[in-house]
Amino acid sequence: MTTAIAEMEMIPAMQVVSKKYRLCSREYQPHDTVVRVGDVTIGGSEVVVMAGPCAVENEYQLLVTALAVREAGAKVLRGGAFKPRTSPYAFRGLGEAGLKLLAHARQETGLKVITEVLTPGDVDIVAEYADILQIGTRNMQNFLLLEEAGRSRKPVLLKRGMSATIEEWLLSAEYIVKAGNPNVILCERGIRTYDTMTRNTFDLSAIPLVKRLSHLPIVADPSHATGKWYLVEAVALGSIAAGADGLIVEVHPDPDHALSDGPESLTFENFGKLMPKANAVAMAVNRSVNTAF
Amino acid sequence: MTTAIAEMEMIPAMQVVSKKYRLCSREYQPHDTVVRVGDVTIGGSEVVVMAGPCAVENEYQLLVTALAVREAGAKVLRGGAFKPRTSPYAFRGLGEAGLKLLAHARQETGLKVITEVLTPGDVDIVAEYADILQIGTRNMQNFLLLEEAGRSRKPVLLKRGMSATIEEWLLSAEYIVKAGNPNVILCERGIRTYDTMTRNTFDLSAIPLVKRLSHLPIVADPSHATGKWYLVEAVALGSIAAGADGLIVEVHPDPDHALSDGPESLTFENFGKLMPKANAVAMAVNRSVNTAF
Amino acid sequence: MTTAIAEMEMIPAMQVVSKKYRLCSREYQPHDTVVRVGDVTIGGSEVVVMAGPCAVENEYQLLVTALAVREAGAKVLRGGAFKPRTSPYAFRGLGEAGLKLLAHARQETGLKVITEVLTPGDVDIVAEYADILQIGTRNMQNFLLLEEAGRSRKPVLLKRGMSATIEEWLLSAEYIVKAGNPNVILCERGIRTYDTMTRNTFDLSAIPLVKRLSHLPIVADPSHATGKWYLVEAVALGSIAAGADGLIVEVHPDPDHALSDGPESLTFENFGKLMPKANAVAMAVNRSVNTAF
Amino acid sequence: MTTAIAEMEMIPAMQVVSKKYRLCSREYQPHDTVVRVGDVTIGGSEVVVMAGPCAVENEYQLLVTALAVREAGAKVLRGGAFKPRTSPYAFRGLGEAGLKLLAHARQETGLKVITEVLTPGDVDIVAEYADILQIGTRNMQNFLLLEEAGRSRKPVLLKRGMSATIEEWLLSAEYIVKAGNPNVILCERGIRTYDTMTRNTFDLSAIPLVKRLSHLPIVADPSHATGKWYLVEAVALGSIAAGADGLIVEVHPDPDHALSDGPESLTFENFGKLMPKANAVAMAVNRSVNTAF
Repeated sequence: MTTAIAEMEMIPAMQVVSKKYRLCSREYQPHDTVVRVGDVTIGGSEVVVMAGPCAVENEYQLLVTALAVREAGAKVLRGGAFKPRTSPYAFRGLGEAGLKLLAHARQETGLKVITEVLTPGDVDIVAEYADILQIGTRNMQNFLLLEEAGRSRKPVLLKRGMSATIEEWLLSAEYIVKAGNPNVILCERGIRTYDTMTRNTFDLSAIPLVKRLSHLPIVADPSHATGKWYLVEAVALGSIAAGADGLIVEVHPDPDHALSDGPESLTFENFGKLMPKANAVAMAVNRSVNTAF
Repeated sequence: MTTAIAEMEMIPAMQVVSKKYRLCSREYQPHDTVVRVGDVTIGGSEVVVMAGPCAVENEYQLLVTALAVREAGAKVLRGGAFKPRTSPYAFRGLGEAGLKLLAHARQETGLKVITEVLTPGDVDIVAEYADILQIGTRNMQNFLLLEEAGRSRKPVLLKRGMSATIEEWLLSAEYIVKAGNPNVILCERGIRTYDTMTRNTFDLSAIPLVKRLSHLPIVADPSHATGKWYLVEAVALGSIAAGADGLIVEVHPDPDHALSDGPESLTFENFGKLMPKANAVAMAVNRSVNTAF
Repeated sequence: MTTAIAEMEMIPAMQVVSKKYRLCSREYQPHDTVVRVGDVTIGGSEVVVMAGPCAVENEYQLLVTALAVREAGAKVLRGGAFKPRTSPYAFRGLGEAGLKLLAHARQETGLKVITEVLTPGDVDIVAEYADILQIGTRNMQNFLLLEEAGRSRKPVLLKRGMSATIEEWLLSAEYIVKAGNPNVILCERGIRTYDTMTRNTFDLSAIPLVKRLSHLPIVADPSHATGKWYLVEAVALGSIAAGADGLIVEVHPDPDHALSDGPESLTFENFGKLMPKANAVAMAVNRSVNTAF
Repeated sequence: MTTAIAEMEMIPAMQVVSKKYRLCSREYQPHDTVVRVGDVTIGGSEVVVMAGPCAVENEYQLLVTALAVREAGAKVLRGGAFKPRTSPYAFRGLGEAGLKLLAHARQETGLKVITEVLTPGDVDIVAEYADILQIGTRNMQNFLLLEEAGRSRKPVLLKRGMSATIEEWLLSAEYIVKAGNPNVILCERGIRTYDTMTRNTFDLSAIPLVKRLSHLPIVADPSHATGKWYLVEAVALGSIAAGADGLIVEVHPDPDHALSDGPESLTFENFGKLMPKANAVAMAVNRSVNTAF
């Protein structure tokens, strides 16, 4: 029991340490963090758009989507290879084969790639293929995953837990930064409330609140927030007006036949219409959205 | 028991009637309702701003606020004379004296006046002084009040209940319209969720969702939604970008000494800064906000 | 403006008054309040059962239910004459004819009668027929109704608002007691949460929490809490074990054809089975439930 | 891309599979599952009590608690060695040293041991020391952890996610059973709602609802549900009356100086008082709680 006793002696000191986030706070760093992913910067004057399918389904689906979203101005390609699914009987992604398809699409298009990592043991392999690691809403308090992502050199997009407070969310970001990785991008994706007409309730005021409390950039996910493609545009524009540093949007060549999240995916046409509107709103708040390849 | 039995015979027929809102639905009326309040129109291309103190406190406070918000472009003066208060020991408003102060401010400034009515018995007196009747979040399902407001000729601003679904809200609007008053303005003011960092959670997607389901105009209340003055601007701009037809904003000459809702009230200076930004965002979505007296 | 100014002078003093409930607090009155309704006492050692249909539909339905619930041990007959309904197209109750049927059933059975009052103007007429006034979840913050019920001499059962905090609920009770009526019975009926498998989420810990904070009795409504007849028994028993002073249960002669709330209504048979189980649990916590006429 | 294409061919078939839980459903197995942990059975007529500190702090704390809870009738010792903590600056448990202390306490007392496992890589080591693996609320949708626990032979106690629906919870149980481990015990520990007076809102009706939908046993955690020691007894008794198969309760020799969850921990004295009351309520519903060593 020597080890245990030795560890115990440290505890009183540990306990007095404040439980608040520190490294992520505005007090600690007054200026905004700008996360650089190659030549793409998140948290600067440009509102960066990430787009792509919920799940990587096959080479054709991914590549055609990548080309379409690049054409409209997106800078980052999203797509899930490892999918967290409520049911063990649902499609759970292509795994490493999906990662390879993402890397291939990057090579073909020049887009950066963001994809989700589900478990500490997968951080290395996902980091090998992706430019940004995504930690999903169900893993916001998977503390070992946060720390492993913190040991990686890759930027991390940390989605808000579906019933997390702002403070819990910033404390989860603190795990990553404390482990050595300052490149954290927060993502508001809606919270769970009593209302069932939308998949989640997009918490607009989280954007200015996070900006006030923390120096980290924050992007909006209007697709998961609403669960309905016809609400995506309004929430995307509202987010930009409220100060979001980026968008992450689901786009699919054929939403009616998507393997997951079809109802909330934009067609290429609707994504193409969104981008100039997003830029107009961004310009109204002295920022911009890239709208041309 | 003859009456009861006679009424009973009608019930089976009543019961088969659908429980859905009808008169308020897009199917029933495809074009947008535009509510006219004298020369002010709500639901048209202009995004109308209503502003003023939470509670009417005295003649000076109201008049100086009315002049300031008019100067910045507001078209409607808000202010509570009958205040619903959680505690019986809190300030409950000036009552009819407050209504008279509102009418006086209208005469001095030309602004329209909106104020809350709490109970069916007060509809007549409030309608005598106000241009728009406000039904608050706690009364969204006060069905007798809805019907009495429906019998009035005045436009009615119906706030969403703090835990109401979109469907319940539209059914409450249906009570008013069914009673004969088509001039209903909906108001999203945030819903109650687990997060305590803001007073309520502003449900941005309610705006495009209501627009899709109903022809009624919808305005946003960023003050009650957030409970914090420093979040009001972002939520106001986000609402306009998402399609809101108006704003209702709390403004006070001295928020630190307000009798209610001080922490969420804008100073004249901050309200003055908000208006041109609101107009810039409105122009980005092909609308406008009035910014000059 | 003389009146307004005179009133204003009082406000600073009013404002410093604490916003907390006082008359309802344990600090103010350490011993339990026992509400007497004729020979029925609520808040003493007996756990009192109130039962009956959601809505009074006709003489036969009410009388046969009254006899059945009395036979099983209920002491109070519940039944709605004025029904608050989400939709203006739903059955809204028989009104005064329903009150007369309730009074008639009381005369025939000796049961006490509880029924809902919706608006201040109806307090007198409902008090004329009922033994206990019920204020429903949608009216928990209808402050004028609370005060009018406070001016009545009848006991008042105050349901918790569907998204009310415990503190807001006790402040609403404070309105009634402050207006002169100390006979308030609180009723936990479930709160609105994200889970849709039950109509509401029954907040069991509200029972011991209210007991600690207040001297008022508290009863449980397992019918509205769950919305499903097959969950009523478990929630009823759990409430008694946790310290509830009574139950209010929906019972209908033919739930499948009830005009409202059929899915959550017990048949006579199931209500008859519940009562001895309720008594067994009550005895385990040193209380009792009446189980025989 | 050969692999990806080969996998893709399987997808259409996978997709048609229903997303509902099957192996966990009552339809699949009508009779109750009884989980055996040595001579302790969970899901039978005895209501099993698990008790102990939130975190294993040191040998003395654990052993004295183990002896006290055994004395009062507990059959299983709980205690965290790996602690999930919202803040990276909080005490995170003794790790393997804590597991060794638990195994030592088992040897000294004969109690079974339950402790939490946080990540797939730790399942083997935790299973080496513990009799029951606990999966906490933050990990209810850590699907790889569920599967790894499913490959273990040890019984698994699966806590409900703090904002999980009943269906999502049963689907998470399905992951474990589908992976080969039928010995799943569900644990209702309260859900996150708007009310802040309790740490969570205990969802009493989840107990009978789970019993109806599934054959798996379900226990209640009144400590995390309420966050307040003085509410634990009422919620514990209510749970038993509503049909819970067990309790898991936090007990600490000195709650005021606990390293975590002090405010919700029972003293030995209060735990000793709870047990005979729990047995009395259990007997009222034809079950029993062990109350003597």
